[in-house]
Amino acid sequence: MLTQPKPEDALTAAEPFATNERAAVYRAIHTRRDVRDQFLPDALPDDLVMRLLDAAHAAPSVGFMQPWSFILVRDEATRAQAYQAFSRANAEAENLFSGDRAQTYRGLKLEGIRKAPLSICITCDPDRAGPVVLGRTHNPRMDAYSTVCAVQNLWLAARAEGVGVGWVSIFHDADIKALLGIPERVEIVAWLCLGFVDQLYSEPELAVKGWRERLALADLVHEGRWPQDEA
Amino acid sequence: MLTQPKPEDALTAAEPFATNERAAVYRAIHTRRDVRDQFLPDALPDDLVMRLLDAAHAAPSVGFMQPWSFILVRDEATRAQAYQAFSRANAEAENLFSGDRAQTYRGLKLEGIRKAPLSICITCDPDRAGPVVLGRTHNPRMDAYSTVCAVQNLWLAARAEGVGVGWVSIFHDADIKALLGIPERVEIVAWLCLGFVDQLYSEPELAVKGWRERLALADLVHEGRWPQDEA
Repeated sequence: MLTQPKPEDALTAAEPFATNERAAVYRAIHTRRDVRDQFLPDALPDDLVMRLLDAAHAAPSVGFMQPWSFILVRDEATRAQAYQAFSRANAEAENLFSGDRAQTYRGLKLEGIRKAPLSICITCDPDRAGPVVLGRTHNPRMDAYSTVCAVQNLWLAARAEGVGVGWVSIFHDADIKALLGIPERVEIVAWLCLGFVDQLYSEPELAVKGWRERLALADLVHEGRWPQDEA
Repeated sequence: MLTQPKPEDALTAAEPFATNERAAVYRAIHTRRDVRDQFLPDALPDDLVMRLLDAAHAAPSVGFMQPWSFILVRDEATRAQAYQAFSRANAEAENLFSGDRAQTYRGLKLEGIRKAPLSICITCDPDRAGPVVLGRTHNPRMDAYSTVCAVQNLWLAARAEGVGVGWVSIFHDADIKALLGIPERVEIVAWLCLGFVDQLYSEPELAVKGWRERLALADLVHEGRWPQDEA
């Protein structure tokens, strides 16, 4: 007679990692950078790309809906069209800054779409698990948030693999949807540029280049409730 | 004479991790679970909590705006009130499922808010870096997405520390904002329950308990464009 496996049979021991393993996780977290320009042209091996996608697929998702899809864009002509979509939007964005800020903004080149050998468009399908999703009933954005967790998993795995990742967010959705044939109902969460890197900034590039400084963590941590003086 | 440091001085060598370090990163990614019930009551040491928050603070953020704040909720009475807010919303959610699904849903206990010794409410302040944010000009959700990256960093660091994390998303924002004094303009991105764990499910709990299966990654990866047959 077949017996149904009990949920508790799937519970396994979960000790803390050894010191050196824990250090490796923190190293990935603290040395990960948003790469805009330092990509090497070498193609990424298929097995490496699959490890990164598998890491993304291991992300938490609301109601285990796994709403993500991954469109791999290697073709140079398609990447050139994406770069044009970015460039148009970037020119619009530039006009929103003035004076020194505008000059600094213009100095922040973003060549990743053209230089990196692989782009990955990561999408969120809100209908992946039907209309009512466990955990999304009171926060309709939980599906996109799950997809962002997949992005961050991929990013950290990439750091460990010596692969740089840049997240491009400056484009009109409609341009990229038309380019890749993405249906209207599906949300584009991230356009990532990926390529090997042999150098990374020791601090976020926007800090290095004087755009904005790292905030003090202590100012962002509050005991018990939101601070009274920060309404 | 003082010379301004050049951005390229901040570039440092970025080799791939050693094999065992890489394995540790993947281990954190693949064994991380959304913990609902297995929390141990022991308080988390302050230095450990700060390492987790520091990991969160190392997340990428659009325009380096670092929009996150972390409210630490240890007080039992406050957690009991949060649990009540969750319970009310959960009863509403339960009514959206019927038949077997409703029964399975009722069986998915979520005791983390009460059992875990620490809750962290992670928020996103859209005004942290002024009205115009580099990279948010064409996607207004990028600030919340940055905050989700912080959540995932914290979650993976916690796994390496032997700390379980559960993300609660079933509550009315207004209830939690009133409880913690969070201003209207600030978004609650996540309520996380944290505590030591000595056991974790080998697969996501919702898979173990028959709610939903893991999808095949190959079905979610597409070359070049969205598949024609999935409009």
